[in-house]
Amino acid sequence: MPNPAPAVVLVRPRNPLNIGAAARAMSNFGFRDLRVVAPHPPVWAEARRSAPGGEPLLKAARVYPDLARATADRTLVLATSSLKGRRPALPVWDLPGSGRRLVSGRTAFVFGPEKTGLTARDLQHCDALLRIPTSPSCPSMNLGQAVAIVCYELGGRPERSRGSIPAAERPRAPSAQVQRLVDLAGRALGHIGYRKSLTPQARRARVRRLLRRRGLAKDEAGMLGEILRRILEMPERFPPPGGGKRE
Amino acid sequence: MPNPAPAVVLVRPRNPLNIGAAARAMSNFGFRDLRVVAPHPPVWAEARRSAPGGEPLLKAARVYPDLARATADRTLVLATSSLKGRRPALPVWDLPGSGRRLVSGRTAFVFGPEKTGLTARDLQHCDALLRIPTSPSCPSMNLGQAVAIVCYELGGRPERSRGSIPAAERPRAPSAQVQRLVDLAGRALGHIGYRKSLTPQARRARVRRLLRRRGLAKDEAGMLGEILRRILEMPERFPPPGGGKRE
Repeated sequence: MPNPAPAVVLVRPRNPLNIGAAARAMSNFGFRDLRVVAPHPPVWAEARRSAPGGEPLLKAARVYPDLARATADRTLVLATSSLKGRRPALPVWDLPGSGRRLVSGRTAFVFGPEKTGLTARDLQHCDALLRIPTSPSCPSMNLGQAVAIVCYELGGRPERSRGSIPAAERPRAPSAQVQRLVDLAGRALGHIGYRKSLTPQARRARVRRLLRRRGLAKDEAGMLGEILRRILEMPERFPPPGGGKRE
Repeated sequence: MPNPAPAVVLVRPRNPLNIGAAARAMSNFGFRDLRVVAPHPPVWAEARRSAPGGEPLLKAARVYPDLARATADRTLVLATSSLKGRRPALPVWDLPGSGRRLVSGRTAFVFGPEKTGLTARDLQHCDALLRIPTSPSCPSMNLGQAVAIVCYELGGRPERSRGSIPAAERPRAPSAQVQRLVDLAGRALGHIGYRKSLTPQARRARVRRLLRRRGLAKDEAGMLGEILRRILEMPERFPPPGGGKRE
């Protein structure tokens, strides 16, 4: 192999759709070396159905008769497991946290068959268990989902920027514009008779808090200004002569 | 709901096996509130096949006609997406790292349909995008696998504490309250004659964007509701007989 990459090894998978699902998840997170040990035939036509986007990877997948041969070129062979309360003979590493230092071009991640999991004999070919911390009340994972989680946690994330990007940056309204808006809104609230017991200052303070708390885009400020001017153009509601039932 | 929990919302899923797979992954990582919007029938018998271990959760799942109703009781609605190079109108948070501070008993994680993903209309009911950092060459994930990764990353792991505890927040307005406000504001804008060339839908979409973009506190929503009801009580301005100079 000219450019070694971490490998995903599926041991005796029963359901071809899971092979396809594994191929797709690997493609999603930049893995490319899929190996299958003694799959239950028939396989490939069926597997393709669940691998949209992962077809090239599926096509390049290699089939081995046993786990020893599938991992012969690997320097670190990790069996995935939820443990299910068993006391393991191998060291156990938790997937979250153990993280990316496990990944090299010579690592293999091994996944057992759907129903039975890896046998003790399989585990003899592994160096450690990689534990996916599932709930004790429902420990057993779907094979394709387990592969997806390992690929997600350990895969290459080129532009990975733990944190957040703001929404497509819209130019923010300058403070002077916000201040004009606050004045306008104060007048509009008086105009519509909002909380007559409040002083104009208190009313403006409320509006200012509302508008400033999270920043206002310029176009939003424009829209609000337009709305407020509309409100100010409306005829004021006077209490009907003789006193209305309200206020 | 006596003991609120984060919800997973599947919007218009085509393949019932994906509903089952979602239920199983949720059970693996301690989630329990599954909601399905307008699923493509037939559903439940088929879904059960892919949900071993997740049957109780599947049984308790609720079906809603639309996303607004499915998230009415939620205060934070996060749409999952790989972005696929689109420039988002919503703020984007990366799943790795943004982590557990997003999770509360009032959060909803929203997943779109398999082929098409969430529509712009769906996104109007969401507060932010939660990005799963997939490879640009194969960005689109299998639905069940995407749910599994979100549940793995954000699910209950008592011993894990990535990140920090956020500052005391003001209680956020649940989506149903925001939606009522949007309706009220749409009517108020019509009442004051704001942009008569816009359809009521377009007017409401503008308001929704404005209100959702940065989250609205409960008390702010109350204040805005009061203002809008005031506006609606005002006498409508009719153009003076013979036609006024405006409009």
